[in-house]
Amino acid sequence: MNDHTLILENVGKHISLSEEEKDYFVSLLYAKDFQRKEYLQREGSNSNHFTFITQGCVKSYLLDKRGEERILTIAPVDWWVVDYMSFVFEKPGNLFIQAIADTSTLVLTKEKRQDLLRKVPQFEQYFRVLTERAFAVSQQRITDILSLTAAERFEKFCIQYPSLTGTLSQQQIASFIGVTPAFLSRMLKSKRK
Amino acid sequence: MNDHTLILENVGKHISLSEEEKDYFVSLLYAKDFQRKEYLQREGSNSNHFTFITQGCVKSYLLDKRGEERILTIAPVDWWVVDYMSFVFEKPGNLFIQAIADTSTLVLTKEKRQDLLRKVPQFEQYFRVLTERAFAVSQQRITDILSLTAAERFEKFCIQYPSLTGTLSQQQIASFIGVTPAFLSRMLKSKRK
Repeated sequence: MNDHTLILENVGKHISLSEEEKDYFVSLLYAKDFQRKEYLQREGSNSNHFTFITQGCVKSYLLDKRGEERILTIAPVDWWVVDYMSFVFEKPGNLFIQAIADTSTLVLTKEKRQDLLRKVPQFEQYFRVLTERAFAVSQQRITDILSLTAAERFEKFCIQYPSLTGTLSQQQIASFIGVTPAFLSRMLKSKRK
Repeated sequence: MNDHTLILENVGKHISLSEEEKDYFVSLLYAKDFQRKEYLQREGSNSNHFTFITQGCVKSYLLDKRGEERILTIAPVDWWVVDYMSFVFEKPGNLFIQAIADTSTLVLTKEKRQDLLRKVPQFEQYFRVLTERAFAVSQQRITDILSLTAAERFEKFCIQYPSLTGTLSQQQIASFIGVTPAFLSRMLKSKRK
């Protein structure tokens, strides 16, 4: 699979492009690799790009009032990761985005995305659908945290991200589902019995 | 101001439409009024529409594990309210949407929105921008709850929604900024001293 097969397949699920449009789209992207634990973005910086994960996995998180890591998003292969707050309002973000495995990405800057939307307006539809889905998933996560028990959230996590249960540490899974690592560890032990 | 002036102004901030396109757009909407405390949607129902607020104000909330109301969104005049989870994934939602003042709305069903997007593709841009902003505001709220003190969140609320401090009850404001009503009441008393 060459570098652009995956992203073109992803786009192709939503819109139909000519070969010329595909070539133009991929000409706007640049590749960037990150080692495990390397930061794609740090709190306080301006985020002016969409990043597509072609290999590996990243998490976005922020530090809560006690300085503890709270994971907002986990983006595995075939997902985009974006700091919407910073991207949309053009101000420094308060998210960290960090690779949790060796990760390869394709980056589309805000400027290039504007060019793309102007020249190939079909991408309006692609990004609309993408954002509506991402927003729905994010709202679902908030309501899960408020309305499901920790055990139910863990079950749901395993179903939703089967490939991640091996990649993420227990600490990361605990942060994502909104429990302490100690609580998750006790829960897993009691399930094994 | 007639029924459609506000919504056309809202759309006009993002895209330019011909008179014919404007007429077509408003022909797809229907008006619906709600008395204070009336429900636009209840938990368990399928949400298949976007609702634009022309008068009044609504809140969306869910009941947490203890059966307490947790406000997700407050939509004043000139905002859309949508249960994205239910709308996007076409399954019963777990949100209540309720009028917190006598409210007038314009409704665009999913089906009509599909017609609109097909016939006037510029609306792809409108809904893309709308969703990116709504998503950014929602992410900002999560990070505010995690990283700001209750007093800072209250200050921010007063700046962001100046017109709402008179409309909402203390209990609703407390739920929105993520504190107990007793805590908000103590905080307000100590500010008045």
